Amino acid sequence: MRNSEPIERLIASFRNLPGVGYKTAERYAYYVIGAEIAEVEELAKNILSAKTEVKFCKECGGYTNKDVCQICSSRSGETICVVAEPKDISVMEKVKNYNGLYHVLGGTLSPLENRGPDDLRIKELLSRIQKLGTKEVIMATNPDVEGDATAMYIARLLSPLGIKVTRIAQGVSMGTDLEYADEVTLSKALEARQVISNG
Amino acid sequence: MRNSEPIERLIASFRNLPGVGYKTAERYAYYVIGAEIAEVEELAKNILSAKTEVKFCKECGGYTNKDVCQICSSRSGETICVVAEPKDISVMEKVKNYNGLYHVLGGTLSPLENRGPDDLRIKELLSRIQKLGTKEVIMATNPDVEGDATAMYIARLLSPLGIKVTRIAQGVSMGTDLEYADEVTLSKALEARQVISNG
Repeated sequence: MRNSEPIERLIASFRNLPGVGYKTAERYAYYVIGAEIAEVEELAKNILSAKTEVKFCKECGGYTNKDVCQICSSRSGETICVVAEPKDISVMEKVKNYNGLYHVLGGTLSPLENRGPDDLRIKELLSRIQKLGTKEVIMATNPDVEGDATAMYIARLLSPLGIKVTRIAQGVSMGTDLEYADEVTLSKALEARQVISNG
Repeated sequence: MRNSEPIERLIASFRNLPGVGYKTAERYAYYVIGAEIAEVEELAKNILSAKTEVKFCKECGGYTNKDVCQICSSRSGETICVVAEPKDISVMEKVKNYNGLYHVLGGTLSPLENRGPDDLRIKELLSRIQKLGTKEVIMATNPDVEGDATAMYIARLLSPLGIKVTRIAQGVSMGTDLEYADEVTLSKALEARQVISNG
């Protein structure tokens, strides 16, 4: 043990954070020891409050500290963007020109992990669509096998109800080099090609 | 604000950690919210204990949760390795074949930051050397201008006392920080230490 016990314990705790190895955890621990006590108490308090105060929005299933989240209580339900996890809402919110609602499934369909339709918040999605008079559902699950399967499943489910279901486009991402794109991505990008001039 | 208030507050706290930007802080925050409550309480507790229980060793000035640290209370004082900061002890301890003591200066001489000899734990070093009958002092301050100047200053100071003062070899590349050096480099640097005053 290179450090005294309280330091090693803190390093072990920090190592649980995603992507944090021993060296990074040790840097964080030394930072904590060197920081002002007020800042350290604030950090500990904020960790506990985030865990205890944050709950799931009764409507969309996203994270909130109220019963109904900020987004659900301020936007119209014409469009609902369906995501797998609560954190995906924050990712999609970076797109400034989307002003619709969200719906968190709580995962994707996964035969391997024994997760079927009943394990996802699909019934809740159906009742929200009916209540809100939703016209379009945008499937924003991850662009992988499970995300695609989940999107197709929900599309088939909503089809008889006359709801338009769309899927976020899959293609080469902005700023990357074509050279490094994989074949599946390139194939999908080609399939979903857009007319830029009709000649 | 993309996230609810408790989450944004936690993100702001995490961003104080060294090298952590918004995106990383947000990942940590979502991890905390999704983790088991016991683990989160453990993290918060360990942060507070590290800050409150860890103090400076009365002898070497390194971090410890006792009056005198594990190293000072178990090793002989024939050799003392002088470092700038408490965290540097853990870095040097990666070199498995060093079995001497340490002494933390609490910084380096820096005219720019108005830090002179009286601001460093130099008097404490002198009295430890006399008390312990130390034969060699290894200067392991960072391989930069301030670190070198501090090493030279202490070498000149100890020369009349007949103490051998060595400097870790500049196998560690100029301008980098000790904290980021790998074990092999550190081990070689220690092995190839050069006499800067024979006392």
